[in-house]
Amino acid sequence: MERLQRPRKTPEPAVAPAAGGPRSREGLVVLGIDPSLRGTGYGVVRQGKNGPSVLAQGTIACGASWPVTRCLGHIAQTLRQVLAEFHPTICVVEGLFYAQNLRTAIVMGQARGASLAVVAEAGLEVYEMAPRKVKQAIVGYGAAQKEAVAKMVQRMLRLTELPAPDAADALALAIAYLQETGRYLIAGPKKI
Amino acid sequence: MERLQRPRKTPEPAVAPAAGGPRSREGLVVLGIDPSLRGTGYGVVRQGKNGPSVLAQGTIACGASWPVTRCLGHIAQTLRQVLAEFHPTICVVEGLFYAQNLRTAIVMGQARGASLAVVAEAGLEVYEMAPRKVKQAIVGYGAAQKEAVAKMVQRMLRLTELPAPDAADALALAIAYLQETGRYLIAGPKKI
Repeated sequence: MERLQRPRKTPEPAVAPAAGGPRSREGLVVLGIDPSLRGTGYGVVRQGKNGPSVLAQGTIACGASWPVTRCLGHIAQTLRQVLAEFHPTICVVEGLFYAQNLRTAIVMGQARGASLAVVAEAGLEVYEMAPRKVKQAIVGYGAAQKEAVAKMVQRMLRLTELPAPDAADALALAIAYLQETGRYLIAGPKKI
Repeated sequence: MERLQRPRKTPEPAVAPAAGGPRSREGLVVLGIDPSLRGTGYGVVRQGKNGPSVLAQGTIACGASWPVTRCLGHIAQTLRQVLAEFHPTICVVEGLFYAQNLRTAIVMGQARGASLAVVAEAGLEVYEMAPRKVKQAIVGYGAAQKEAVAKMVQRMLRLTELPAPDAADALALAIAYLQETGRYLIAGPKKI
């Protein structure tokens, strides 16, 4: 709503923000998380004058032999370290996600719960975005392949290497959030 | 396995442990958790000479209007306080649980994940027990009603009032764990 009340009438002619958004996004640090028990992806992105850049990215790997609780503890601990080092103020996760059955849904839910509890305790605002919307924002096509999203993430963040799949999804969430909220839209990402 | 290797041949004639278990359980502090988004039950039980007694119990209430993430953060924060105050070394949760659909499973999974991440990070050993087994241990009947379990929990812990439903379930888990592991069984609760 604030965006609607205070539209910026004077665009920057020299260095326009990548997504055409208002300059108030500048300096914002966003954490994207793609939670899963064995390989939670995360990406920390900072909005600069010339668009977003990456501060950190990675996959929280948990061995196949690890008990569930060890994985959950490791996810929470790693994310807490990421928060302490990069101080994001916004967190974005996928909204609707696919689960094959109840067991998978519970396992995925557990990884998500471990992640969100950490960011909630740290006081971040948490938003969710539908996978379709993220792909639409990044590639311009809601049914894009994962590979296409990863390649576009690499290009947008000027990475020398293609990010790992889980990290790429997390980075895509962070970038998509910055794009969506940088526009004069009424319906932005949903706060959860 | 340790229990099988060192059976106690000399029972205490004066004050026998409630569950007939070896005295090595004495002093053990067990945290039972019944995770749910709006009302996570918890119960901290200490095994004494005359059976288990309660150190703490309660329901972590989260308002119906609270966003999911606020609930998860509140659950994690409260459980961390409980750990800091009572120093349990064992945590027990329900094993198989019922979910009506994928959405419920995810929500329940999230509450469980937020809870387990906290206890895992704190270094507790986490076990799960099937609801049937818990009821069997407490009431002696695997299909017992919740009310019957709560009443038996009240009696076993010598509580002046009937515990609230969520707290009663959590207390039942802790007591059942102490009973199961106090016997000379090969197959105890499953470590997760």
